[in-house]
Amino acid sequence: MAYLSKKIQAIEPYTAGDQPQGPCIKLNTNENPFPPSPRVQKAIEEQIPLLNLYPQIGAETLVAAIAQREGLPEGWVFAGNGSDEVLALCFPAFGDEDTPLRMPALTYSFYPVYATLFSLPYVRVPLRGLDIDVDGLLAGGNVILANPNAPTGRALSLDTLARMGRCLRDRGEVFIVDEAYIAFGGQSARPLLEELDNLLITRTLSKDHSLAGLRVGYALGHPQLIDGLRRAKDSFNSYPVDRLAIAAATAALQDEPYFAACRDAIVETREFFHEGMVALGFEPNPSCANFVFMRHPQVPGKRIYEALKARRVFVRRFDQPGIEDYLRISIGSRQDMETLLRLLKDCLPALRGQGKETVDP
Amino acid sequence: MAYLSKKIQAIEPYTAGDQPQGPCIKLNTNENPFPPSPRVQKAIEEQIPLLNLYPQIGAETLVAAIAQREGLPEGWVFAGNGSDEVLALCFPAFGDEDTPLRMPALTYSFYPVYATLFSLPYVRVPLRGLDIDVDGLLAGGNVILANPNAPTGRALSLDTLARMGRCLRDRGEVFIVDEAYIAFGGQSARPLLEELDNLLITRTLSKDHSLAGLRVGYALGHPQLIDGLRRAKDSFNSYPVDRLAIAAATAALQDEPYFAACRDAIVETREFFHEGMVALGFEPNPSCANFVFMRHPQVPGKRIYEALKARRVFVRRFDQPGIEDYLRISIGSRQDMETLLRLLKDCLPALRGQGKETVDP
Repeated sequence: MAYLSKKIQAIEPYTAGDQPQGPCIKLNTNENPFPPSPRVQKAIEEQIPLLNLYPQIGAETLVAAIAQREGLPEGWVFAGNGSDEVLALCFPAFGDEDTPLRMPALTYSFYPVYATLFSLPYVRVPLRGLDIDVDGLLAGGNVILANPNAPTGRALSLDTLARMGRCLRDRGEVFIVDEAYIAFGGQSARPLLEELDNLLITRTLSKDHSLAGLRVGYALGHPQLIDGLRRAKDSFNSYPVDRLAIAAATAALQDEPYFAACRDAIVETREFFHEGMVALGFEPNPSCANFVFMRHPQVPGKRIYEALKARRVFVRRFDQPGIEDYLRISIGSRQDMETLLRLLKDCLPALRGQGKETVDP
Repeated sequence: MAYLSKKIQAIEPYTAGDQPQGPCIKLNTNENPFPPSPRVQKAIEEQIPLLNLYPQIGAETLVAAIAQREGLPEGWVFAGNGSDEVLALCFPAFGDEDTPLRMPALTYSFYPVYATLFSLPYVRVPLRGLDIDVDGLLAGGNVILANPNAPTGRALSLDTLARMGRCLRDRGEVFIVDEAYIAFGGQSARPLLEELDNLLITRTLSKDHSLAGLRVGYALGHPQLIDGLRRAKDSFNSYPVDRLAIAAATAALQDEPYFAACRDAIVETREFFHEGMVALGFEPNPSCANFVFMRHPQVPGKRIYEALKARRVFVRRFDQPGIEDYLRISIGSRQDMETLLRLLKDCLPALRGQGKETVDP
């Protein structure tokens, strides 16, 4: 790889879930089973004749809609091409070579990759069981975490977030809370924003607003932090959010009843599915997100994963010590989850009876 | 700015052209005056019900369309969220801290910003008049240039590009040619791709395919270089090109007759406008791009810029020593260019008569 930089040769890029082709049940990337708000179509169509013109440089229309929804001034909001981009830009905006960034060892596995891309030091703090080690994260330096955490689905309380944020603020350190899944459960750090000028909250419209295919994410925080993100954005891509994304995301955010109905349906299905899994012998692990993270005490995760894959059901499994037996299963439609429970009921007895080797589909 | 990194505090972000609101003639960001291909609408509408699902991780449908258009295998193509993103990702992909990147001192002014964002060294090589100093660029290290160059509109010949590419290849250095404006004139480096495994060509659909509002760019090059870009992309954003962008860009690329008709009209209007400007006393500077870059020997550029702005005509001017009297004027519709020529004819005599101070609109 003679022409590639040493860094890009050495980096281990993030691996997203498979995108299988053909008919299947796809529960591996936490997509929303519902289409986006019906308002989205008209908003998109209005922009098509204008596509020869650049979008707003700061996605101002979208930023205004987010600000209004959150009860914040517009200077407290930043929009990007998916929360992946917003998170990536946080690294050069707030990270210095001499300040470590602390993150849970088990969390969204893109964080350490961003740090490597921007040549920034980071520390992965081991969990205690499936729970975040709060004091370990506060040992010095900026902190990033996901709340609810992925892939565990567990959330920190607002009290804990406040304690962390204050401790970091008093030391002049930034606290980034990735709320990709907050619509489905847990307590948002939003009420802390006015108090904590070091708090940045990131969100995505991919999951809770059924817009994974459009790539829109945003950040909320004190104008100084938002300014840092803007400076990073203007050093990477002037117009990361396109005209259709601005219009569609704005329309989706303004359709609160539709959003709430989809979210409620997903939460209800999650509870139904979790109970069904427990009835099949899986260990309970209540989730605050639009997925569950569960293991079966008698059957290796890999075996279940492969048996499902052979039946065209795709879930996510992480080949990582300590969680290799867990499956992260997105909450799809009620029908898909019922199908999955039936499939598991049929194949678990045989999987349990097998030896250590994995099934050969 | 206590919470911002030292780098982001020090960086000078790229400044894009103004996005004025309200009725005006906007000739400052090289947008195409024509709407996108009529095929784009249907392609977009088909994707709307699927927006809850993530896009293809490698924009495969779009990559296949580009590959077919260029007569290249798909492994030779990379797609991104505008050529800005593609160019930005080149920096970590090919740049090392101990290898300088050389670029013309006058070119797309985003290049030095990317280098700063990724903490990479660069050298700006002064032009000779308005022409690129080819030998100066070959003094050691990777090279990036725009062909045709912006904002001069001047192009290097294929022979010169071949000589540069071979020299760099023999030293194990990467040659990035930004062909954002190549559809409007100049010779593409495309015929050199099979010979030169160090050559990466970047393009955008913003200008020649009327899709500035959608943000789609791409790169062509040897699979090793494309792999470097993919690794950088997967370390920044898994899905930078959204479903609507993939579908619309594919449809636009497949409508060759529409593309050719728009391009021909713009080139014809450019020639008409250039002649009109020369008749008004501007110095001739034939352009290969969808803009002209011209100065009037008797009237300071700032004065013309401000007089036009006061009349709601927006052009681009760079407050940079050596080119402060030049205006970069995008080629809009024939009607807009006729209006601009009439306006200039009306106001130039008065501007010429003024002293050194600028007009107060």
